[in-house]
This record gives sequence, structure tokens and C-alpha cells, in this order.
Amino acid sequence: MGNIVNSYRDFCEQPKNSNIRLSFPAVCFVWQIAMIILFGVFVRYNPESDAHWPEYRRMKNFTDLENDFYFRYPSFQDVHVMIFVGFGFLMTFLKRYSFGAVGFNFLIAAFGIQWALLMQGWFHSLDYNDGKIKIGVENLINADFCVAGCLIAYGAVLGKVSPVQLLVLTLFGVTLFAVEEFIIISVLHAKDAGGSMVIHAFGGYYGLSISWVLYRPNLGKSKHMNGSVYHSDVFAMIGTLFLWMFWPSFNSAICNHGDGQHRAAINTYLSLASTVLTTYAISSLWEKTGKLDMVHIQNSTLAGGVAVGTAAEFMLMPYGSLIVGFFCGLISTLGYIYFTPFLEKHLKIQDTCGIHNLHALPGALGGVVGAITAAAASTTVYGEEGFRGIFDFNRVAPVQGGYQAAALCVAIVFGIGGGIFVGCILKLPIWGDVADENCFDDEFYWEVPEEEEIVAPVLEYNNHMMMNKNSAIPATNYAVERS
Amino acid sequence: MGNIVNSYRDFCEQPKNSNIRLSFPAVCFVWQIAMIILFGVFVRYNPESDAHWPEYRRMKNFTDLENDFYFRYPSFQDVHVMIFVGFGFLMTFLKRYSFGAVGFNFLIAAFGIQWALLMQGWFHSLDYNDGKIKIGVENLINADFCVAGCLIAYGAVLGKVSPVQLLVLTLFGVTLFAVEEFIIISVLHAKDAGGSMVIHAFGGYYGLSISWVLYRPNLGKSKHMNGSVYHSDVFAMIGTLFLWMFWPSFNSAICNHGDGQHRAAINTYLSLASTVLTTYAISSLWEKTGKLDMVHIQNSTLAGGVAVGTAAEFMLMPYGSLIVGFFCGLISTLGYIYFTPFLEKHLKIQDTCGIHNLHALPGALGGVVGAITAAAASTTVYGEEGFRGIFDFNRVAPVQGGYQAAALCVAIVFGIGGGIFVGCILKLPIWGDVADENCFDDEFYWEVPEEEEIVAPVLEYNNHMMMNKNSAIPATNYAVERS
Amino acid sequence: MGNIVNSYRDFCEQPKNSNIRLSFPAVCFVWQIAMIILFGVFVRYNPESDAHWPEYRRMKNFTDLENDFYFRYPSFQDVHVMIFVGFGFLMTFLKRYSFGAVGFNFLIAAFGIQWALLMQGWFHSLDYNDGKIKIGVENLINADFCVAGCLIAYGAVLGKVSPVQLLVLTLFGVTLFAVEEFIIISVLHAKDAGGSMVIHAFGGYYGLSISWVLYRPNLGKSKHMNGSVYHSDVFAMIGTLFLWMFWPSFNSAICNHGDGQHRAAINTYLSLASTVLTTYAISSLWEKTGKLDMVHIQNSTLAGGVAVGTAAEFMLMPYGSLIVGFFCGLISTLGYIYFTPFLEKHLKIQDTCGIHNLHALPGALGGVVGAITAAAASTTVYGEEGFRGIFDFNRVAPVQGGYQAAALCVAIVFGIGGGIFVGCILKLPIWGDVADENCFDDEFYWEVPEEEEIVAPVLEYNNHMMMNKNSAIPATNYAVERS
Repeated sequence: MGNIVNSYRDFCEQPKNSNIRLSFPAVCFVWQIAMIILFGVFVRYNPESDAHWPEYRRMKNFTDLENDFYFRYPSFQDVHVMIFVGFGFLMTFLKRYSFGAVGFNFLIAAFGIQWALLMQGWFHSLDYNDGKIKIGVENLINADFCVAGCLIAYGAVLGKVSPVQLLVLTLFGVTLFAVEEFIIISVLHAKDAGGSMVIHAFGGYYGLSISWVLYRPNLGKSKHMNGSVYHSDVFAMIGTLFLWMFWPSFNSAICNHGDGQHRAAINTYLSLASTVLTTYAISSLWEKTGKLDMVHIQNSTLAGGVAVGTAAEFMLMPYGSLIVGFFCGLISTLGYIYFTPFLEKHLKIQDTCGIHNLHALPGALGGVVGAITAAAASTTVYGEEGFRGIFDFNRVAPVQGGYQAAALCVAIVFGIGGGIFVGCILKLPIWGDVADENCFDDEFYWEVPEEEEIVAPVLEYNNHMMMNKNSAIPATNYAVERS
Repeated sequence: MGNIVNSYRDFCEQPKNSNIRLSFPAVCFVWQIAMIILFGVFVRYNPESDAHWPEYRRMKNFTDLENDFYFRYPSFQDVHVMIFVGFGFLMTFLKRYSFGAVGFNFLIAAFGIQWALLMQGWFHSLDYNDGKIKIGVENLINADFCVAGCLIAYGAVLGKVSPVQLLVLTLFGVTLFAVEEFIIISVLHAKDAGGSMVIHAFGGYYGLSISWVLYRPNLGKSKHMNGSVYHSDVFAMIGTLFLWMFWPSFNSAICNHGDGQHRAAINTYLSLASTVLTTYAISSLWEKTGKLDMVHIQNSTLAGGVAVGTAAEFMLMPYGSLIVGFFCGLISTLGYIYFTPFLEKHLKIQDTCGIHNLHALPGALGGVVGAITAAAASTTVYGEEGFRGIFDFNRVAPVQGGYQAAALCVAIVFGIGGGIFVGCILKLPIWGDVADENCFDDEFYWEVPEEEEIVAPVLEYNNHMMMNKNSAIPATNYAVERS
Repeated sequence: MGNIVNSYRDFCEQPKNSNIRLSFPAVCFVWQIAMIILFGVFVRYNPESDAHWPEYRRMKNFTDLENDFYFRYPSFQDVHVMIFVGFGFLMTFLKRYSFGAVGFNFLIAAFGIQWALLMQGWFHSLDYNDGKIKIGVENLINADFCVAGCLIAYGAVLGKVSPVQLLVLTLFGVTLFAVEEFIIISVLHAKDAGGSMVIHAFGGYYGLSISWVLYRPNLGKSKHMNGSVYHSDVFAMIGTLFLWMFWPSFNSAICNHGDGQHRAAINTYLSLASTVLTTYAISSLWEKTGKLDMVHIQNSTLAGGVAVGTAAEFMLMPYGSLIVGFFCGLISTLGYIYFTPFLEKHLKIQDTCGIHNLHALPGALGGVVGAITAAAASTTVYGEEGFRGIFDFNRVAPVQGGYQAAALCVAIVFGIGGGIFVGCILKLPIWGDVADENCFDDEFYWEVPEEEEIVAPVLEYNNHMMMNKNSAIPATNYAVERS
């Protein structure tokens, strides 16, 4: 056994080669063709998106408006923006990894949603009459949710992995997610509207475990690239804000029609507002002269949205949402200040985006908040019908609270276990990742434009200025610069 | 009395100290805790977001779809984007104040919406049975609207105030707004769907008055920072466009269901389209060789949305909207060319973003347009039922027009009066604002990334080039630059 | 005849003068005033946006929610974002033409939608009782669609034309579009929900033909400006992503209520996901060491949305959508690699943004896909009622397929013919376009900020460093740089 481990280690320590010219296109093509075949065999429209809708509608006595599309499509589009612009731009903060951040985020999300439609479809939308998965707008939202788990994991390994590794991470991540989600939602009958547990805790621990297995002892060699410049921080704020603004849609997208969606949006709106204040306060308090740190503003302001996810549909009460947000902003910001360095130094977990503070921990807190809120639920507060509508299973409240807590454990176990397993696969030296000194640099997977911006008028101006002052200095090459 | 004024002046003229390490976190914590307590005492869900909805719905004979959430949530999200991305990015145009623009905008909006839910709730959503404020999606929209007034005011003082001052500005601004709005909407029964008067005229004059009290005679010392660079102008266009695109949602968000929302969106769409043409035309006409000025394009193109706000729900007619937009683009652009310099030179009002031309004046014009349109309303044009639906008070049209005009006066008086009052508070030397020579610079409230982008290949290239040409020059430090 | 052609050529070869100080404002004012007059004569609200709605609603036995506004407004706003932010930012990739990209896009879209409301209104929304055009939210969407054709054409001539030329291009483009659309939709009764033919094929060939007529033999002189820098590529990704995310709304916006909109969104979502994978694969496969090219990622990933447009509402089946996306990503990326250089070298068509690969060709493919899918339609798959609902004309499926193919021909003929005609007008030397050596440079139509970012601390730091090393070198002027 020790022998196998040793030879695995030796094998993994081969020198890195970032040429992915064959492996990457091969994986893309194989997987896309597999998707087409599997969709051909399995996936059809559901009754609300099928052309037989007029007959179905009459049978159910619906109007066109009662097509689920009109309940959920606006929320779906907001979630879609969070996945592609929100996550993508949030990670553009690195000075020279913006192409990778937004570009690979795009790639793995586009692949992941296809695989998620299948995996989640088999578990949740299979029509046992004909063996087909029947999809509608809710499946699209769930596929976006599913891929969010993998994008969170990407945050931990940002700048340190190849696109091939990311595709593998996504294939396994979506698979694990679908199983975990099935256990939590359909076996344990736990509720998790905004996915604090299912998405954030799972995704966070999945990414951290992978990062732990892929630990790079000499990452310090890329230290000069692991930071932001002024404009890259502004780009990242685009991601932050679109995530922040649309989080109420994220948490309410698949809630019950009517009061469920309405209340989830309100709770999330309030929790996020509260988080902003404590994040700014802690960020300022811990810096000399009270300056604010963009890393905290870009990330910790979102923790309240994560933590209110599980309980978003519950009668958390407006002040309850504010309290959740208050503590999450506080804990998340302190996490960036103390815990991320601790993780790297003592646990050997290199967490580029600090997903522990933004997703893993707030997600786990959200699970706890959800368990407590569920355990305290009563028909006085919810009304008979409301209670049955939300906890759609015959349990008394404290029992439901216990199942919620169990669900959180499932999410974390799947995250850590799955992450270690997938990490070991990704450690193999066949995926084209870069050497430690080349991390956080787009140069290796992207055609980066040459930055010579020698534009005539400026050049002349420079020449002119210099000639007047010191005629011995040739000025032309000073204009070679990076924007 | 003169004595008091003089000692106030002397007190205010102490040297500035921008250290906010204690004051800023203290204010954030105190206010957020106050919000939690007040929400705990006062705020609950309304019947459409409460878990008792199934019973309420049955009682009212509603379907789930008739929950107000589905009428207003898409518009709410658009308004939300305008508040956080629109206003935030519009102000990123300064070369070195983008963090402050987008970051402080984020902070004060997140605080302001909480305080607005309370203030507006006491006036408009109080349930007299149990003394609780009952909130739903319309309250969220109104809170966003309310905070917009303060963000407009921020535009006038951008780069010249500390975040503590901004929080104070917001606390008082929201309070004044709620009172002013109550007088205009509930006492005068004036209509102001898009808030030309309530939001824009009030917010504009509020900000200008504060800026007048806080006049900085030596602001010229920061002149080199009070301008844009190429990429910061592109960032600002993100703000411009999201404001421009979603303005139809802003003006229609709280209109009557059905034709009200529909018509308000159409009127705003048309007015904005027309404004663009005249803005471009005037901008080109007033420059040598007809070049366009980004300041005009970023701002004046929005004036049509402001000015059509009050009348958006009225039967303004499509051509009426085009006419409003036409003149607003014209007046606003000329305002940037002539009036902003005049304000600064002769009235000692330093208006960083030119909010006079974008909000104050178009808002006032919008009030006038609204008064005229209301005075000219007839049951022939509106239909009996439509007339009663829009002007929900028993008045003949000319009387309604008079009340509309009175409402405009209220908005302006509250703006100017409130602004002078709050300005005097903000002038106290305890809020941590920067000295005149340090304005428009993120350096003082933000950890700004060091801009050393010494990337190996470039450096070597530089070295190589230089060595060949003039071996006496050490080249390493030339690569130190700001992106 | 040859005489006329020769004197036209001679006339066109006069030296260029980019001063547009009179012509540009004049055109803006004249056209905007014309719009106001024509709207005054012709345009009114339709029954769903008119204040008589309560009576109309009762007559039709509708609820407020059945106002078309609630079916289409969220999609409208998504389309609006695509037009202004999507198209605008997609074209900001050039290092020094971002103002022109996003600014002129804004201008021509704002003008075009007004003219489109009139042109499309006369053809489709004329009330023959009173001779008025009655507009509602669907007209706004169609106006946005119409102007998309012109924005596509702008992509081909980006950086090479003056704003006056763009306004002329738009005036004629919208006119041609409206006629072409009328023939395709109302005469041929072809279906084209997402406008593969009507918008993309037409717009693409229109732009390419104009570019062919305006061929600039010495464009190589501006070669140093015809490329991106790092941050301009990130800006362009904002455009790409908003187009990509909201394309499901684009293709579903004017579909039938209920299953039509639902299915179109699903088909588009899937097609686009599939396109991403093949685009990345081909991009990597064709570069040394497998690097990705931002040009492909920014553009070809969108081809699947174009190509699925015509068939979006049909029962294309989920796997069918994936297949369409698969081949479009492949063909579009190869188009950028092989066909764009071929077009320029052999056909003398300079296509700045590569619209041939993103719009013209995928649009034509989409027409073919639509024709095949329509020809294969059956009542088994669609249901009796569904079939009649979608193909709202009494034809058997193969005949409908034939008409679809005819529609594609109409779109291409209008594009090419119209483009050549308009190109000849634009070639006249009176429109203020720049000389060949000044293309792709904002300098000529915009006040571009001076890029001196001499910020005190940096300067001192530089000075300090230099003084220590080589006291003979004056350091001040090195800080003059471009961001």
C-alpha cells in the first residue's frame, strides 16, 4: 500500500508541461459529443415547454400565465447573470489573470450546466412512463445552481490549474453535487432554498480539499502575480455587485410560488444590506488609519446572502435576516484577516479567492441558521397551510431541525471526501497545469495582446520633453508598458 | 448670535485629519445595531410575503400570480441594478477615485435602504392594529428610490467627503426624503411615479446645498486628480448604460398595475431615446472640430429619464415624451458647458458630477411637465375610469395641476433647507474628511494596490533595449508604473 | 454611363476631412425633429398601454396580469441590455476605440429605435380606423430587434466610418429591415422568432457589402491601432457575456405566450452552451501550445444563439439545439481563422469585428435549420393545436419549409443589395470620415483625456530611486504614460 502511494507521489512529481493543444480540445469534443448523444437518448421538453401545452393547459384549467415560465424566468435570468458575470468578474481581481478568471468560468459553466441537466434530471425529473428527462425553466435554474458549486471550487484553485483540470473538476463536481442534493432534498427531506448547504458548503469544502491535495510548496515564486492592480479591482466590483444585487433572485428562484418567493427575496435583501455595514466596519477597524481593503469589500459583503440561503423561505423575520447578515459580515471579514493566512501556513490550503470565508463557512452557518429556524417553526407563525406548504413532509418542527442539521453534515462530508478524491486525480501530471513560478499568469493559456501602446503623439511628446532636458537619453523605449 | 457663528467657523477651520479608524467602524456598528433593534420592534412581513398567504389569497380570491411580487419584482431588480451598478459606476469616471465611487455608493445604499424601510414604513405601511410596519416588494422598491436621493447628493460632493460624512448625509437625507415624500404624496396628493420631484429635484438640491456649505476654496490643489483617464471613462459608461436601459423600469416600478406600468415604460423609453440625439448634437456643436465630450455623453443622455418621471404614468403621448427628451438633452448639455463653471465661480458650489444638470434641473423641469400634463388631463383622453385610477383623488384637472406645482416647491425647499442644515453638521472637523490637496484620491480611505507591474518578460525586454542603446542607464525602475 | 461612374469615383477620392462640427449636429437635430413631427402625426398608445385599459380589459374579460406587459417586459429589458451593453461593449476590444464603440453604438441605437417604431408600425401596427400606429411593449422589442441589424453592420465598419455615416447607415438600414421583415413575415408567412434571417443574415450581409464598397486599400497604415490591449479585452467580455446570457430572452421575446416562449428559451440556452465547448476546442487546437484566442472566445461563443434563432420556437428538441450549437461554434471559429483573412485579401472586404463569422454565416445557417425543422414538422410532434399555433397559416410542413428557404434568400438579397446601395452613398466625401492612417482611433471624434497620470507619491518614489542610482537623469517625464 505504502508502495503504491509512493509510486503515485513519484509519478506526480514529474516536471510540469502546460501544453494542452491536444488534451484540451480532445476533452472538449469528447464531452460535448457525449452530451449530444445522452441528450438525444434522454432529454425532452416537459409539458409546459412542449408544443402540446395548449391541450395540457386546458386539461389542467390553466391560463397561459400559469405556465411556470412566468413565475421563474425573471429569476432565472438573474441567476444566469450571477453565474457568468458575477462569478466570472469577481475573480478578475488578479492583475494578470482576468482572461483566465472570466474565460474559464465561462467554459466550465457552459459545460457544467449540460451535465447538470442530465444528472439532476435522472434524480428529479425522470418520467418513469417513457424513461425520459422532461425539462423546463426550473431545470435550467437548478443546472445553474449546480454549476455554482464548481465555480466556487474554482475560486480556491484560481490561477493554479489548467483548463483541462477544471473540466475534470466540473465533471466530478456536478456528479457529486447531484448525489448530495438528492440525499439532502429527496432522502432527508431537508429544505435548502438558496443552497447554503447544497451549493455553498459543499462547493466551498470541495474546492478547499482539492486545493489541499494540490498544495504547491513553492507558490511563493508567483507571489508578484498574486495581487491586484487598480483597474482589475474595479472589474472585480462588477462581479461583486451583480452577485449582491441578484442574490435575492438566487435564493427565491425555486421557492414556492407566491409568498415563498416573495419572502425569500425580502430576507435576502435585508441580510445582504446588513452584511455590508459590518464588513466595512471590520475592514476599517483592522487597518492602520482605518483604510478599507478591497478584498473584504469584494467578498465579505456577499456572505450574508450565502448564510440566509437555507432559511430564506422560512419565517426568519426581517430582524432575523439582519442579524444573520450582521454576524456573517463580521465573521467573513475576520476570516480574510486571520483565517486565510492560518489555512495556508498551518493547514497547507492555498485559497486564492478566500472561498472559505465567502462560501464554506457562511454556507455552514446558513445550515445551522436553517436548522434552528426550522426547529423553532410553529403553526402559529406559519399558519396550518403555510407550515404544510413549506415543510412538505409530516414532521414536527424539532425533528425537521434535526434533519436539517444532518443535511449540513452530508454536504460537508461530500465536499471534503469528494474534494480529496478529485484532488488525487487532478494531481496526476497529465493535465497540463503550470509550474509554481508561472501561476496567476494568463500568458500560458491565452494569447495575451502585446502591450506596446506606442501611439505616435505620446511618443513624440516624450521625445520632445526629453530632448529638451537631457539630449543624451534615447526615449523611445520608455513607452513600452503594460496597461 | 454672531459670536456663536464665529466660534462655529473657527472650530470648523481646524486642520483636517482623515484617520477614521475609530469613528467609521463605530458609526457603522451603532447604526446597524440600531437597525436590528428597530426592525425587531417594528418590521414584519405583509400579507403577500407572510406564510399565511394561502389563507389570505383564498379570502381575497386571488391566484398565486396576483401576488404583487409578480407585478413588480422584475422592475425591482432593474431598479436595484440602477442603484448599485448604475449610480456606482457612473461615478467611477475620476482617474483615481473609482474605489470610492463604487465602494461608498455601495455602503451608503446598503445602509440607506434599511433606514428608508423604517422611515417610509412609519409613514406609509404602518398597520394600526398592531403598530407594525408590514413590508413587501413595493417597500423594497421605495427604499431603493429613497436612497437614490442620497446617491444623487453624493454626486455633488464626490471625492471631497469622508465615508463618515456620507453616512451622516444618508441618515438625514433619508429622513428628510421620507417627510417630503409624505407631504407630496399623502398630504398634497400629487402624483410622482418616477420621482422627478421627490427623488431628483430633492436629491439634486440637497447635494448642491451641502456642497455650497462645504465649499473648499483651495480645491484647485487637487485639480490634477479631478479628471478621467481612458479606461475610467469606459467604466463610467457601464453606469450610464445601466441607468439608461433600466430607467423605464424605474419610472414604471410603482405605477398602477396594467396600463400604468405599461405606459410609463413606453414614455420613458421614448424620452430617453430623444435625449441621446440632442446631447450628442450639442456636445459636438460646442467643441472645436465637432468632437464629442464623454462628460456629456455619460450624463446628459440620462436627463430625459429624469424629466419624464412625474408625467410617466400620464397620457403624455409618445410625441410628448420625445419633446421632453429633446429639450432635456439640450438644456442638460448646455448646463455642463455653461452652468457648472458658473456655479463654481459665482455661487461657490463645487459640483463634481454635475448633478445640477443631470438631476436638479431636469427634476424641476419634470415637475413642471407633470403639472402641465395633469392640468390638461381630461376624461376624454383618459376615460372616466382611467382618470379616477390615475388621479386617485376627487379633483378637477387644473386643481391637480396646481397641487403638482406646489409639490415641486416642497421638494426644492426640503432639498435646499435640508442641505444647508446637514451641510453645517458635516462642516464640523470631526468627520475625517481630507485636506483640499488630497481630494479625489482613493489613497486616503482605501488600500490601493501598489502598481508595480514588473513582469519578467517586459523587464528583460526593457533592459535589453536599453543596454544596447545607452549602457549607463539603469532601467529597472522605469517599469514602476500606474495602470 | 462609364462617365458617370468615373466622375463619381473621382469625386469620392477627394482628401478626407473628419471635421463634423456642422454636419453631425445638423443631422441629429433634423432627424430628431422629424421624429417628433412624425410621432405627433402617427403614434399613439395601444389598448394595453392606453388609459382606457380598464374598459378594454373588462370588455375582453382580462385580468390586469393578462396585459401583454407582464408577458414580455422582462424579456424586453434583457433585449435592451443586449442592444446597448451587449453590442456596445463587445466592440470595445480595440485598444483605442472604446469610446467610439460604446458611444456610437449608443447613438445609432437611440436614433434607430425611433425610426423603427415608425417603419415597423406602418407595416404591422397601423390601426386602419384612425390611421394611427398603436404601440405597446412588443413594438419596443421589435424596434430593438430592428436596430440590432444596423449594429451588426456597424461591427463590419467599426473604426472606419464617421458618426454621420453611421446615422445614414441606420436610417437606410432600418428602412430596408422593415421592408424585408414585412416580406418575410407578412407576405411569405415565414417564421423567424429569433431573427436568424431577418436580423442576423440581413444585418451581416448589409454590413459586409457596405464594407466592400468602402474598401480602404491603405488600411494597413492604421494596423498598429487595430488590436486590443489587456483591459480592452476584459471590457469586451462584458459585452460577450451579456449577449450570451440574455440570448434566450432575445429568441423568446416575441414568441407565443406559454410554451412558445418557454421552449425558445430552453433551445437557445442549450445551443449556446454547446457552442462554447467547440469554440474553445477549435481555438486551442489551431494555436501553438494550445493557447486560447480572445477574439474567438468573445465572438464565436455567441454563434449558437444566432443559428438557433429561426427554429427556437419549433420542436427542435434539446439534442437538436446542442447539435446546432456544436457546428456553429466550430464553423464560426474556423471562420475567424481562415475566412476573415480570405475575405480581406481576396474579396476586399475589411470586417473589423468578423461579423461574417458571428452573424452573417450563422444567420444563414439558422435559416437553413429553420427550413429543415419546419419541413419536418408534424402534428404528431406538435399536436394539432400546437401545430396551428406555431405555423399560423394553412400549409403542409414541406411547403412551409420551402417558404422558410425563400425567406432566407430575401434576407440575403436585401442585405447585399441594400448594402451596396448604401455603401455608394456613404462613399461620398461629405460625411467626415477619417483618412486611412487615422482609423481605429478615438482621437478624431472624441475629447480623449490626457493620460498624464503624474501622481505625486509615484513621482517622488521614482525620483528617489533614480537619484540614488544615477543622479544625472531627470526623472519627471518618465511618468507620462497611457493607462
